[in-house]
Amino acid sequence: MRGGRKARQQASQAAATAPASFGTASLKNPFPQMNLFSDDYISAMHEKALDILETMGIKMLLPEARQYLKSAGARVDDAAEMVFIGRELVEAALTTAPRSITLAGGSAHRDVTLELGRLVFQPGAGAPYVTDRIRGRRPGTVQDFRELIQITQYFDALHMLPPLVEMQDLAPAFRHYANMDAMLTLSDKVPHIFSRGTPQVEESFEMLRIFRGMSEDTFLKTPCCYTIINTNSPRQLDIPMAQGLIDFAKNGQVSVVTPFTLMGAMAPITVAGAITLSHAEALAGITLTQMVQAGAPVCYGTFTSNVDMKSGAPAFGTPEHFQASIAAGQLARKTGLPWRAATGSAANLNDAQAANETQMGLWGCLLAGSTMIIHSAGWLEGGLTVGYEKLITDMEVVNMIACLCTERQETQDDIGISALEEVGPGGHFFGCAHTMERYKDAFYEQLVGDLSNYGTWKEAGGRSVDERATDIWQAIIKQDKRPEIDLSKAQALSEYIDRQTQAGGALPVS
Amino acid sequence: MRGGRKARQQASQAAATAPASFGTASLKNPFPQMNLFSDDYISAMHEKALDILETMGIKMLLPEARQYLKSAGARVDDAAEMVFIGRELVEAALTTAPRSITLAGGSAHRDVTLELGRLVFQPGAGAPYVTDRIRGRRPGTVQDFRELIQITQYFDALHMLPPLVEMQDLAPAFRHYANMDAMLTLSDKVPHIFSRGTPQVEESFEMLRIFRGMSEDTFLKTPCCYTIINTNSPRQLDIPMAQGLIDFAKNGQVSVVTPFTLMGAMAPITVAGAITLSHAEALAGITLTQMVQAGAPVCYGTFTSNVDMKSGAPAFGTPEHFQASIAAGQLARKTGLPWRAATGSAANLNDAQAANETQMGLWGCLLAGSTMIIHSAGWLEGGLTVGYEKLITDMEVVNMIACLCTERQETQDDIGISALEEVGPGGHFFGCAHTMERYKDAFYEQLVGDLSNYGTWKEAGGRSVDERATDIWQAIIKQDKRPEIDLSKAQALSEYIDRQTQAGGALPVS
Repeated sequence: MRGGRKARQQASQAAATAPASFGTASLKNPFPQMNLFSDDYISAMHEKALDILETMGIKMLLPEARQYLKSAGARVDDAAEMVFIGRELVEAALTTAPRSITLAGGSAHRDVTLELGRLVFQPGAGAPYVTDRIRGRRPGTVQDFRELIQITQYFDALHMLPPLVEMQDLAPAFRHYANMDAMLTLSDKVPHIFSRGTPQVEESFEMLRIFRGMSEDTFLKTPCCYTIINTNSPRQLDIPMAQGLIDFAKNGQVSVVTPFTLMGAMAPITVAGAITLSHAEALAGITLTQMVQAGAPVCYGTFTSNVDMKSGAPAFGTPEHFQASIAAGQLARKTGLPWRAATGSAANLNDAQAANETQMGLWGCLLAGSTMIIHSAGWLEGGLTVGYEKLITDMEVVNMIACLCTERQETQDDIGISALEEVGPGGHFFGCAHTMERYKDAFYEQLVGDLSNYGTWKEAGGRSVDERATDIWQAIIKQDKRPEIDLSKAQALSEYIDRQTQAGGALPVS
Repeated sequence: MRGGRKARQQASQAAATAPASFGTASLKNPFPQMNLFSDDYISAMHEKALDILETMGIKMLLPEARQYLKSAGARVDDAAEMVFIGRELVEAALTTAPRSITLAGGSAHRDVTLELGRLVFQPGAGAPYVTDRIRGRRPGTVQDFRELIQITQYFDALHMLPPLVEMQDLAPAFRHYANMDAMLTLSDKVPHIFSRGTPQVEESFEMLRIFRGMSEDTFLKTPCCYTIINTNSPRQLDIPMAQGLIDFAKNGQVSVVTPFTLMGAMAPITVAGAITLSHAEALAGITLTQMVQAGAPVCYGTFTSNVDMKSGAPAFGTPEHFQASIAAGQLARKTGLPWRAATGSAANLNDAQAANETQMGLWGCLLAGSTMIIHSAGWLEGGLTVGYEKLITDMEVVNMIACLCTERQETQDDIGISALEEVGPGGHFFGCAHTMERYKDAFYEQLVGDLSNYGTWKEAGGRSVDERATDIWQAIIKQDKRPEIDLSKAQALSEYIDRQTQAGGALPVS
């Protein structure tokens, strides 16, 4: 019983303490950038990627996409649905794509700037399943989606909203309504819109304009939402993805072109091969956006890991995943564009394997100089599941990284000679003036880590970090802290959703 | 029952598979080096450290140590046991201390070279307690020590032997015999000798000479063991530690001078203050070794983390610990000496907290350019306990890092154009020639990570990485693989130990 009371106290304390504010816009990446390959080799990879686009081509299933590229001068074989993109088109696209993109959030302090050197985190996304210690593993629902958006809103170090789980209890024609409702009313961070065809995308844009009170004109000039575009590697772009690139470019909204390639499966087995293919596909998507509208905001992206060659199972946070991120960073810097990379874990439980894989993958992204790190908290089972507790325990790492991004201003006094003058050989510094002036915010404060000694910890119930994480997410949801919203606009959004729902929704395109 | 059989199969498989060979000598650190402070600020810290030694002084409890420094020109106050070391002495010491040290192992492939740019790992050390899932948490014993040496021997990525746990079932006068017996007969890696006073150190040297068949002369010229020297921060060096520095320097053996400072407790609360103090103390120890014997092999060291200012509990793998390692690296590079840093965890269980802290601290050491990373696997409870399972799960990370240290030789063919020619848009690369030529050793092979999908994993028992780690350490110990030893020398060692034990052993000095 004491354990229960204690747990509740800890939980209420967890929610009461606002998370330390780690930069309300994007962070600056303080880590040095790593190279995996020589500059010459990277140049060769870049040239080979251009060769692939020019001579082997990329299959684009959407006629409109082929037409855009054909009009710009690409060779197109409509019967084979193939587009052969000359390097001059790619080079032109890299000239017009902006180097810096500021996305407007629902509040000014939620604006996010994407450019090389900046750093933005997102939690795990796109999982069909969710799991937590209370309710077990289950298909994702609208309720899970909304709870996970609330948890994402809670942490300042998560800068953008991704679609954490798939809402399997809602028919596909209506999910985009629930997506926008949750992202806009439960958070003021930058929302994600799935590219599942023009009808859903257009309606999502309309919901955003209604809720934010934006005219179509203002919307066209204000990046305020984003979509993730995955190619169907190798060398293929499907219809909804191509529509997404076109719709977002036309509307001045942000596409993140992210080939998702597993070495040995959808990509060559080598890091160099997989990243060259990924680079070619990203360049194809980027080029399409610029042919639709020069200057359209677009991010480079990569998500390349390996499979276990015995079982075909995907692996994350491996040395090869790490190296793929590093190599992608070298190529991304060649484009000059902001870019995303991802971490993740194949573990089935929120245990040390899960923690180690996600953190290892994260360091790959950080040392690669990635602008936007996706799946930085919560991913289990190679992305099939988002874990509530995993999200919390990973946030400890993300918060620590965010803390390391804080700019420092050292004074001579920080060297602490006055403290050494006060404390003699063998003494301690607990009470000295130098300590007393600084102790309140000298150190990072743990989110879920327990620093108590073994006896104290054991007496308090001997709980694992996974158990403590349950308290924290429960407290965040119970606290139900919402951003201030304009009720009339919320009402208008709600009416729009009701109306469109009555009308049968909008089916995804495939 | 099926679970049990499966577990045994996995365990026997774990032991049967020799661990991938990640460089049998030290690795090369492939990661870029990070700076926390500006060069000017680092210079100011270095100057302040020299000021501290020169004007505030350091307390050395051993008269012989004071005498060495006095003879070299330092000002000494014997009544106060204080030594004031002028900067010219420190500078002279940094001129004579070698930049590169090769320690001879028991086999040539176990030789370890310590110099800036190299990388050596050690598991967790110095814990009074041990824990594992079978036997629970308990005071360390001789058996535990021997088992943990066997586990350390098993992993190629662990390059040197530390004293993993304290053998509390053996009287202190005899522990150095058990230490040398385990380190020499169960492993051929470089052994550690505790500096617990000249009698034990001299006997340990003698055991090493007996077992390795070395003359005193050869021994003096061949670094083949090391000791860790902790100062008693702030500004104090106790008797056994000073004796250790002197004895190791006289014998041409390696001292690693490592102030262990917790910010806000034994050191100023700021990273700059704690590391300046640590630097001063390390320089004092290094200077002493060079005054005893110019050219004696000695490493710079640091282990600085913070305490939780509410409870006074030590914390590891925090942003401050990370930053302290980075700052220490900047100062270590000023000395040019090989140097050690450490990671660790304050967690009480081998859970995600434990994994995250140890890995976060590890990245601090790696980006700091540390030569020797101590406590890289197994540390729990801030070093009060070494966990058998924690050692295994941390080794996954160490192995992955070692894999990233492997030098790459990329060919144009690795870019995989032939694979892309073979596999059309939307196809897969599982069976293509480019894959088949490479798949056997394309990817890192997991030690304890389970990549199977949720259904397969669940059916196989749904075990955590902690449970799987138990299988692995049990299999390693059951396998009982020992290095080849010269039986006559082992006999001679055994006779020496028996003789000295009969004579009452050698008490530690304090």
